[in-house]
Amino acid sequence: MLDREIIETKERVESLRLRLAESDLDCFLVTNLNNLFYLTGLRSSAGAALINQDELLLIIDGRYVTLAEELAMSYWKTGLTVIQVKETYEDTIVEQVIRGHFNRLGVESQNLSVSRYRFFDGALRNKCEVKETVGVVEDLREVKGEYELSCLRTGGRLLAGVADKAVQLVAFGKSEREIAFDIDRFIENVGFECLAFDTIVASGSNSALPHAKPTEKRIEVGELVVLDFGGRYSGYCVDMTRTVAVGRCSDELIRMCDSVREAHKMAIESVRPGIRASDVDRVARGVLGRYGLADKFVHSTGHGLGLEVHESPRLAPSVQLERAGLDRTLRNGMVFTVEPGVYIPGLGGVRIEDDVEVTDNGYEVLTESRVNFVNR
Amino acid sequence: MLDREIIETKERVESLRLRLAESDLDCFLVTNLNNLFYLTGLRSSAGAALINQDELLLIIDGRYVTLAEELAMSYWKTGLTVIQVKETYEDTIVEQVIRGHFNRLGVESQNLSVSRYRFFDGALRNKCEVKETVGVVEDLREVKGEYELSCLRTGGRLLAGVADKAVQLVAFGKSEREIAFDIDRFIENVGFECLAFDTIVASGSNSALPHAKPTEKRIEVGELVVLDFGGRYSGYCVDMTRTVAVGRCSDELIRMCDSVREAHKMAIESVRPGIRASDVDRVARGVLGRYGLADKFVHSTGHGLGLEVHESPRLAPSVQLERAGLDRTLRNGMVFTVEPGVYIPGLGGVRIEDDVEVTDNGYEVLTESRVNFVNR
Repeated sequence: MLDREIIETKERVESLRLRLAESDLDCFLVTNLNNLFYLTGLRSSAGAALINQDELLLIIDGRYVTLAEELAMSYWKTGLTVIQVKETYEDTIVEQVIRGHFNRLGVESQNLSVSRYRFFDGALRNKCEVKETVGVVEDLREVKGEYELSCLRTGGRLLAGVADKAVQLVAFGKSEREIAFDIDRFIENVGFECLAFDTIVASGSNSALPHAKPTEKRIEVGELVVLDFGGRYSGYCVDMTRTVAVGRCSDELIRMCDSVREAHKMAIESVRPGIRASDVDRVARGVLGRYGLADKFVHSTGHGLGLEVHESPRLAPSVQLERAGLDRTLRNGMVFTVEPGVYIPGLGGVRIEDDVEVTDNGYEVLTESRVNFVNR
Repeated sequence: MLDREIIETKERVESLRLRLAESDLDCFLVTNLNNLFYLTGLRSSAGAALINQDELLLIIDGRYVTLAEELAMSYWKTGLTVIQVKETYEDTIVEQVIRGHFNRLGVESQNLSVSRYRFFDGALRNKCEVKETVGVVEDLREVKGEYELSCLRTGGRLLAGVADKAVQLVAFGKSEREIAFDIDRFIENVGFECLAFDTIVASGSNSALPHAKPTEKRIEVGELVVLDFGGRYSGYCVDMTRTVAVGRCSDELIRMCDSVREAHKMAIESVRPGIRASDVDRVARGVLGRYGLADKFVHSTGHGLGLEVHESPRLAPSVQLERAGLDRTLRNGMVFTVEPGVYIPGLGGVRIEDDVEVTDNGYEVLTESRVNFVNR
């Protein structure tokens, strides 16, 4: 698979070079560290890349320079040059831009801080124009390559196995933290490199908080318990939510569960290439609306998955997405969550979440588990 | 302790208000999420705060609004108002700034992205001047309050216990990943809420990579093994490194260890209020220089600890710090790591790291463990 991985990495750089040529940028500065990994293969807590039509410079500090040089020699072989930071990243970047006699440098305006931008803009004045770009590499990342899909599919399958075991953990008298601790062990033991985010176990009134932290609270009969967890597999994030109803629950809670199960099912079944991201959101909200629960669905229907656990495309109401230019047309190779939920403060909440790949003519659920809702 | 915590949180907001008044800002936008937690007590993956002399507005989306309202009522009681995001954070922030008729809004230029800045600057044009600020809240965070120190001291003591057990894990034939897995369990079981960062276990030539990831490589006799790990306790990060020499090592490796042990000891003993952060770095580099190893010390001597595992003050050469205006005078209540290291590619590396609090007349090591270097 390494061959496929490096081929895709090199293809990404070539795709970026095409975009740069179209945008009349002769150089591009990558400062988003996920984009850096996507384009170079280096995972680090600092670093930058400068890309032009001929060169890919990986600018890195002393902590990572040996690793970067190994990557350049054994993974890339040709096409990547490592530049070690002397004093600061900013100085070294400016030095390289000036050395290259570039005219228009693209920067990542969603990632670059105002203070770093001011430094570059000042230091390059009269030498190179600094152009703010939006989502150039993120756009490339929206549609996954075959290698990326293989990581996400394997991750999805592993996480579905975790889900089947996780719902069995929920039992009267156990604390949220105990359950979360065990879910975390499942995730690590099944082959993920790490959690994709802090695991959520939220019971009773806590389940009405979509992003609750596990507490010492113990599970009681008649409660809903939301389990939301994810793992990173070969760099790629997968993310699932299951809801467990413990013993006999009130009619109101059961009705909430029914509404979310239906919204989840209908939204997933609507996925196919060519529709808008907001169309999927509309389906979910429509179902919840028929139950009179649309205003209890306080978040978006889903988010893209990849190197980040939240990335483009977002599945949300068109009014939110359109203004920001983010209402994507779904394309074969996109991967995202579908996760409707309803939350009634003080009473409880339900969320069901699966990861979906857009295929040639429809969708594939990557996290198919035995059940997505349990009453035990 | 909750009382002390909320008192300190409110004091921080008052300190910030004094700074705002001095800077002639009548409103300040907090977008850095660690700063948001520091000033409000809310830990979230999104959010913002708007602070003026009279109000503290916590701007938050639907996922966190119930949690935020509980915080406002039971933790704050008075002084914090929750504003729920309607469509986007940016819209809601602009709406609140306009509602308040403010003249000069401070923004966090090291955190705010260029694209968000452009949005605010455009939407507020002719209504409110957007002023870029640098490190306003980060400066406050440099000197810890009593509550924060109590968290860091407890965290340091717990992590020292982990260190004593971690060095015992290193043995011929074990893989780096096995050791890292066990260290992670120690950290979780001893009472930390999570790891502060991915644990490093680096043996043999891997130990020459300061930020190595644990691999399947097995420990051999004659190698150095660097263990670098940390935990978050009540939100506060602590961080330690120990090096283990396995069996009989070459004279060159032992000499590297001796140099780092001496640099670590001398640098810590130099800590006291009134000196510069770069002075501590100079002591460490001076010792390594006497061993002819100064150029093998490829990172800075230390970093502040707190809500982030890397924060101000940085302990680095004055030439690096001064240009950025970061060469801090050490003050009572600052907490940072001291972690000299030497790395020879292909051969191996050594790092020893402890966490140090600056006290009235000197220092206190918060991570005092039985040993900081072991030959076993």
